[in-house]
Amino acid sequence: LSSASCRLDSKDLLLTTDVLVEGVYFDFRTCTFHQVGFKALAANLSDIAAMGGVPRYFLVTLGFSGKLTVAQLDQLYEGMADLAHDYKLKLIGGDISAAPGGLFVCITVVGEIEKGRAVVRSGAKVGHLIFVTGTLGDSAAGLELAKIIDRSDHLHRSLAITSLLPLLQRHFYPIPRIHEGRQLSARRIASAMIDLSDGLASDLRHLCEESGVGAVVEAAALPLSPALVEYARQVRRDPLDYAFTGGEDFELLLTVPEGRVARLMQLVRQERIKVSQIGRVFPRASGIRLKGAGGRRLPFPRRGYEHFA
Amino acid sequence: LSSASCRLDSKDLLLTTDVLVEGVYFDFRTCTFHQVGFKALAANLSDIAAMGGVPRYFLVTLGFSGKLTVAQLDQLYEGMADLAHDYKLKLIGGDISAAPGGLFVCITVVGEIEKGRAVVRSGAKVGHLIFVTGTLGDSAAGLELAKIIDRSDHLHRSLAITSLLPLLQRHFYPIPRIHEGRQLSARRIASAMIDLSDGLASDLRHLCEESGVGAVVEAAALPLSPALVEYARQVRRDPLDYAFTGGEDFELLLTVPEGRVARLMQLVRQERIKVSQIGRVFPRASGIRLKGAGGRRLPFPRRGYEHFA
Repeated sequence: LSSASCRLDSKDLLLTTDVLVEGVYFDFRTCTFHQVGFKALAANLSDIAAMGGVPRYFLVTLGFSGKLTVAQLDQLYEGMADLAHDYKLKLIGGDISAAPGGLFVCITVVGEIEKGRAVVRSGAKVGHLIFVTGTLGDSAAGLELAKIIDRSDHLHRSLAITSLLPLLQRHFYPIPRIHEGRQLSARRIASAMIDLSDGLASDLRHLCEESGVGAVVEAAALPLSPALVEYARQVRRDPLDYAFTGGEDFELLLTVPEGRVARLMQLVRQERIKVSQIGRVFPRASGIRLKGAGGRRLPFPRRGYEHFA
Repeated sequence: LSSASCRLDSKDLLLTTDVLVEGVYFDFRTCTFHQVGFKALAANLSDIAAMGGVPRYFLVTLGFSGKLTVAQLDQLYEGMADLAHDYKLKLIGGDISAAPGGLFVCITVVGEIEKGRAVVRSGAKVGHLIFVTGTLGDSAAGLELAKIIDRSDHLHRSLAITSLLPLLQRHFYPIPRIHEGRQLSARRIASAMIDLSDGLASDLRHLCEESGVGAVVEAAALPLSPALVEYARQVRRDPLDYAFTGGEDFELLLTVPEGRVARLMQLVRQERIKVSQIGRVFPRASGIRLKGAGGRRLPFPRRGYEHFA
C-alpha cells in the first residue's frame, strides 16, 4: 500500500487505469519483462492521449508469484521507466502483492488538462467526419508474427522477416499518441475521441454508443502500413481483417465537425501528424456499417479483442 | 481501460493504491464478496486517513476467472458502494480483465487536502510521543476466529462466541479512521502518521525508517479491546501477540510533539476520539524496543504480515 500527494494547479485532473494479466494479455514465451512494463504504461498513456491531456504521475501495482526474479522485476520497471522518461512522468506510488496465479501489472496514470478541455467519447454528432491517426492492424499482425517466429515452424521459414520488423516494434513498443491528442484537443479539432486499444470494430462501437450515433466506414480508406500489406500478402490474409479487429494499435479515433477540417489539415501540415479520414457519423438508426469497393455493404465485425472469449 | 476527469481546486492531491489478491489476502471459505469489496476500499481510505485527507474519487480494477457469477460481482461492488456512500466517494473509472489465477481487486483512491497539509511518515523527531487510535489486534484475532468457526472443530465448540463477535466485525468491516486523520492533520497535531495495515511491529518500523529515528514502546500501554482480551483468554494466547503483529486494524499510528499533547487531549474530549500513548521516539541508534512490566526489555517482533512468507 503506497500513497503520495501531488499538485495540479487550476487544471482538470485526468485519471486512467489499466491492467495487464499474464496468460491473457501477454505470454512470456513471446515477450520480455521489459516489453510488458513498457506496454502496460503505454496503454494508460494512450487513454490520456485520447482525452487530449498531459500525463504527469503514475502508480504501479504488481502481483507476482515467488518464481519471479529480482532481475525480471527490474526489467519490468525499466520498461516503464524508458517510456516514463520520454514524457517526464513521475512514479509516485504503488503496491505489490503475492499472486499465485501469475503476474499482473495494474497502472494508474494521473494527467492534467486545461479546465473544461478534456475530449470525451460522447461528442460525436451526425455529419462529423471520422478520422484515425497512424496505421491500423500493425500490432495484431505483430503479435501473430511473434508467435509464428516463436514456433519456428515451416511458416516461419517461408516468411521474409526483415520487411515485417516494424510490426513487431508496433506490437511490443507501441507509442501512445500524446502529442497528437494534445494538439487535437488544444486546437479544439476533435468533437469526440477514443484510443484504439481493443480494435477499430470495438472502439468505434464504444464511441458511437456513448455519442448516441451510427457510422459508416469506408474499407478502402483504412490506413495500412507497408509492413502490414506485405505481411498479409505473405500469410495470404486480408490486411483489413487486422485493421478492423486487431487490438493494441493505440492510435486515436476521432470525429471532426466539417467546419474544423481545415484546422485539422493545417495541424497535419504543421506538425507532420498522419491522419486519415475513414468515414462519417450517421444517425443511430443506421447502425455501424462498413462500405467496400463500389459502395457494397460488408459485414461489420461485431467486436475486437475479447477478454473472456 | 477506463478513464475520467475530475476537479480538485487549490488543494493538494492525494493518491493511494492497494490490491487484494485471492488466496493471499482473502479466501472465500471464510469471507464473502461483499466483505472483500468493502475491505479493499477500506484499506485505501485508511491510507488517505493517515495523510489527513478527504477521499473524493476511486477507480476499481478487477481481474477474475470465468467462474465468477454476476451476482458475486454485484456483491463485490455493493461492498465498495456501502463504504463509498458513507464518505460520498464517487466511482469514476476502472478496468476489468480475465485472470485465470483468481480474483484480484486493485483500487486507486484520489483524495485531497489543504495545500501543504498532508501528514507524512517522515516527520517524527526524538522526544515526540507515540500514539495509536482505537484498539489493536482485533482484526487478526477476528480472522483466526473466522477460520476456527469455519473448521467447526472441537476448539470452535469450546468457544463462547457471542462476546467475540466484535472481532469478526473488525476483521471483515474495518472502519477507516478518516475523521480522526482529518482532525489530527487540520489541528496540526500529528508530526508523522501511518495507518496500521501490516501490524504495529511492521508499520512502526516503516515510520521510524522514514523518519530516521528509533522508538520505545510500552507493552502495557497497548490498547486492547475487551473482545480481544476475552478471545486470548479462551484460546490461551497472549493478547499482545495479536496487538503487535496482527495486520489490518487500520488504526492510525502517529507521533506528537510534547507541546501539542494538550491540543490532542482537547480533540479527544471534543470529538470523542480514542487515542492511547504507547511510547516515545528515541534516536535511531537505540533501535526499536519494546518494554515489558518493570521496564524489562522484550524481544520486538521483527515484522507483521508477510506477503511472500
